[in-house]
Amino acid sequence: MARLRVHNFAISLDGYGAGTDQGLENPLGVGGERLHEWIFETRFWHEMTGETGGDEGLDNDFLAAGFTDIGAWIMGRNMFGPIRNEWGDSDWRGWWGDEPPYHQSVFVLTHHPHDPIEMDGGTTFHFVTDGIESALAQATAAAGDFDIRLGGGVATIQEYLRAGLVDDLHVAVVPLLLGSGERLFDHLGDAVHGYECAELVSSGSVVHVRMVPTR
Amino acid sequence: MARLRVHNFAISLDGYGAGTDQGLENPLGVGGERLHEWIFETRFWHEMTGETGGDEGLDNDFLAAGFTDIGAWIMGRNMFGPIRNEWGDSDWRGWWGDEPPYHQSVFVLTHHPHDPIEMDGGTTFHFVTDGIESALAQATAAAGDFDIRLGGGVATIQEYLRAGLVDDLHVAVVPLLLGSGERLFDHLGDAVHGYECAELVSSGSVVHVRMVPTR
Repeated sequence: MARLRVHNFAISLDGYGAGTDQGLENPLGVGGERLHEWIFETRFWHEMTGETGGDEGLDNDFLAAGFTDIGAWIMGRNMFGPIRNEWGDSDWRGWWGDEPPYHQSVFVLTHHPHDPIEMDGGTTFHFVTDGIESALAQATAAAGDFDIRLGGGVATIQEYLRAGLVDDLHVAVVPLLLGSGERLFDHLGDAVHGYECAELVSSGSVVHVRMVPTR
Repeated sequence: MARLRVHNFAISLDGYGAGTDQGLENPLGVGGERLHEWIFETRFWHEMTGETGGDEGLDNDFLAAGFTDIGAWIMGRNMFGPIRNEWGDSDWRGWWGDEPPYHQSVFVLTHHPHDPIEMDGGTTFHFVTDGIESALAQATAAAGDFDIRLGGGVATIQEYLRAGLVDDLHVAVVPLLLGSGERLFDHLGDAVHGYECAELVSSGSVVHVRMVPTR
């Protein structure tokens, strides 16, 4: 059965998955880009952006694992774009240019209906207005024999965690203090009792933690 | 010059250094004892409690380092005991029995004066009512050529961090979710910009992070 997997979701040592004041100028919130610097060092990232070089090793392996056996994506609307409330006459097509790195169906959670957007390279953004279970069902159908990757942001992951629907949660703890923003492990209610650690390793620059449902 | 060091301060993956409802029944708060289970596996702990056996390795090394070149301790009143407000006719002498594991001067921060308490084995509890700088000055004088170890709890460490007085902060991140309690990295204000990571390693069961003042 298809599994819902979170990969490489970076949080600071003080727990923030994004900085404050997310928007067009700061898609990851103020200071949030510092959570992702470890990614730019990896070979995987270099290849993805058409460069040579980059580091192999643990960080690279975890990054690559996040794209293995994935057949569809789910993300919150803020991960798709900075537009809030009604879409209006926006022609926003995502943060990633004409050819996003997904190459498959991406289901975007929103309260505001929008026609699907077909991009170059096989990515189609579908907009889901009837909740997280519906998005998961649609993504499962689209994924075929593969798993579903759950992107961000923080609020979207929290919704799926609270509902007990996440099968594998990989978090990359970056050893810096942001001081403010959105905390990933917050507002989880009883869901905190439903997860246990399956893996805990450090690359020296980032800690990789995998939490899975308690058996 | 004597340095103020925090060692082996355990926090959960969601950032809590103690559970809720700290008191006589739950000195570490509800669920807080789960933050310390990794300690009980180590050789250092076994020796400290008069047992044989126990694991060597990374966790053991970090635990031992916390008692190396230390000449005095500072702790908050809640780490000394469960009594709040006035001492009254309490004859409380700490959580650790007649012979506490400090074997040196321990400066306890409190708003309520109390005579020093001399224990077996060289530990003397001094009660400091005029603030964290005064406690640090007294501990520095008592420590001679050695460093000062800053114990807990969360609020006490936060006070010293905000004042920029911590020279080495070693936190052990335990990969479990508590869901509530007191977060260590909270209410730090601009002090978050004053610390950077000096070490990040995992034993497989616990992550050890050392934060030091930014150069």
